Amino acid sequence: MFNHAVIGLGGMGTWHVENIQKKVPRLHVKGAFDIRKEAMDKTERLGIKAYASLEEILNDPEIDLVTIAIPNDMHKDTAIRCLRAGKNVVCEKPVTLNSAELEEIIAVQKETGKLFSVHQNRRWDRDFLIVKEAKKQGLLGDIKLLESKVQGSRGSLEGWRGHKLNGGGMLLDWGIHLLDQVMQLDPGKVVKVDAHLLKVFSDEVDDNIKLALLFDDGMSAILEMTTMCLINTYRWHVQGTGGTLLIKDWKCNGELWQLKPDAEMTWDEDIVYTDAGPTRTMAPRPKYTMNQLDLPDVRGDWSDYYNNVLDVLEGKAELIVKPAQTLRVMNVIDLLFKSAEEGHGFACCI
Amino acid sequence: MFNHAVIGLGGMGTWHVENIQKKVPRLHVKGAFDIRKEAMDKTERLGIKAYASLEEILNDPEIDLVTIAIPNDMHKDTAIRCLRAGKNVVCEKPVTLNSAELEEIIAVQKETGKLFSVHQNRRWDRDFLIVKEAKKQGLLGDIKLLESKVQGSRGSLEGWRGHKLNGGGMLLDWGIHLLDQVMQLDPGKVVKVDAHLLKVFSDEVDDNIKLALLFDDGMSAILEMTTMCLINTYRWHVQGTGGTLLIKDWKCNGELWQLKPDAEMTWDEDIVYTDAGPTRTMAPRPKYTMNQLDLPDVRGDWSDYYNNVLDVLEGKAELIVKPAQTLRVMNVIDLLFKSAEEGHGFACCI
Repeated sequence: MFNHAVIGLGGMGTWHVENIQKKVPRLHVKGAFDIRKEAMDKTERLGIKAYASLEEILNDPEIDLVTIAIPNDMHKDTAIRCLRAGKNVVCEKPVTLNSAELEEIIAVQKETGKLFSVHQNRRWDRDFLIVKEAKKQGLLGDIKLLESKVQGSRGSLEGWRGHKLNGGGMLLDWGIHLLDQVMQLDPGKVVKVDAHLLKVFSDEVDDNIKLALLFDDGMSAILEMTTMCLINTYRWHVQGTGGTLLIKDWKCNGELWQLKPDAEMTWDEDIVYTDAGPTRTMAPRPKYTMNQLDLPDVRGDWSDYYNNVLDVLEGKAELIVKPAQTLRVMNVIDLLFKSAEEGHGFACCI
Repeated sequence: MFNHAVIGLGGMGTWHVENIQKKVPRLHVKGAFDIRKEAMDKTERLGIKAYASLEEILNDPEIDLVTIAIPNDMHKDTAIRCLRAGKNVVCEKPVTLNSAELEEIIAVQKETGKLFSVHQNRRWDRDFLIVKEAKKQGLLGDIKLLESKVQGSRGSLEGWRGHKLNGGGMLLDWGIHLLDQVMQLDPGKVVKVDAHLLKVFSDEVDDNIKLALLFDDGMSAILEMTTMCLINTYRWHVQGTGGTLLIKDWKCNGELWQLKPDAEMTWDEDIVYTDAGPTRTMAPRPKYTMNQLDLPDVRGDWSDYYNNVLDVLEGKAELIVKPAQTLRVMNVIDLLFKSAEEGHGFACCI
């Protein structure tokens, strides 16, 4: 049994407490601290100790692990302070506002030998796990064109998400998840990036964005995050040389079709006529040349995140969400911001 | 009544003859020439004169207008020859292999004062006209995120389309249509381009591609052309600040939803829980905050292309597909090829 404290008891901090209590029996949430008095009122309902200060947590020798869920601009200093106090640290995402800040944390992590991991919880989202499993099983052949989209319609981003100073904006909020996922999927290097970071509802932060990544194995990834979508299309569309996968929504409704091994490239209705002309290249393929498969039956279990952290502390496992992986994602994010600022994309090798 | 001859009697040349005969009564297809004997056999069935050479067409004083439908690498020299012979010229797309070649044609067009127009027939495709009309009527507010896709599954490109020398490849074949359409939709300048030009089934030409364009009014456009798609998604997805438009297929099945004027940004089911975490930003909007509209009822009439050309010859109209517009598209294409070769995107002002 490990003892745990949560630093920052806002929406996500509270979510950590409740879900650890429900799903991670090996981890005991001893208490929490938030500088906002109104947030601390929740400790009673949660049945945890109300620490009077961050210092009190750091001085509590029983605390093995802390989770940092405070505004993003405070992650760096707080994480370093916790590591230096001998605590193992889980940090909410975006881990920092840029890769330089993260490098400072990683230096202290190495110096102290303590554990540091970012809560990239969406590696345990079922939609992502299905894509990962389909790739692992080779169901799609070589994956060449991938799209990952999250589509909302609330217009401007809420609260701190709307402020640059707090590390707001869509790229740092959702982009970091979608980038982490796609960089987990493809083992290759990112060799080209470009970003359309639109500020549609804000003068301060990007709220509607498209990211374009090319990998050294030739996979193209386009990521979309929107807050003005009234007709959602899909969460994932993945095209490989041997099959296509579609996941429509968070509930993972979707389809997977494979080319039959002997599938022909010509067929009876060979040309499709549109209003203004014919096309042979884009004529729809008849169903009899394809096989439909069920989506891989994978379940996500978010508690694996904390269980892995605890296994690492017990010396029984390798860390899943590694600082080096997080740094790679932050390096891509730095370059995406730069591409938006300077008005052109970049070659890279990340 | 104008007299017309077709140069090149392959698939598209024959299509021009048949469709002019059916739909453009003011234009009389007098004859055609093709260097391939087997292609010339079609003239009898088509009821048109079999010219013995290109020269014979150029020397026929009755011919007012020629349509060039020969391999793309021969467009430039042939177009210039026809213009110099005093003929008005319609040229198939891609008009040339790059903008420098097109500039040569345009110089001769200006010198001779003859008409030169590219057969960008997909400006008359109904799916495009619906998007154009929705924009014109302001049904979507300010359009910010646009996707235009054509999805096939034939693998490698057929015939000349597979050869670089003949101006093959997806960017020149379909890219030129989708670029022309989106540059017609947005009156602004293209300020940033990037391309993923994958060669999945060929060592020679791009066959599966993504193009990313940013316009100076802040519109982001992503264009997809694929030959390995077993689950087609849609032809258009257009998100504006006030509405979203989806066109699924060539038959123009689709939807259009608008935000109600007083639509709220919060609602009862405020948070959606995925397997690995909550999201408020991406929670689905309830239908009662939106209105569904019919897609604009627009019909495309391809014969308007030739009728416009004839009206211009009669001094009654302005040319619709202008050389300057075509040059703008070719300038973008040049830069997209360059971005793929050099491995990074570009800022521009086209």
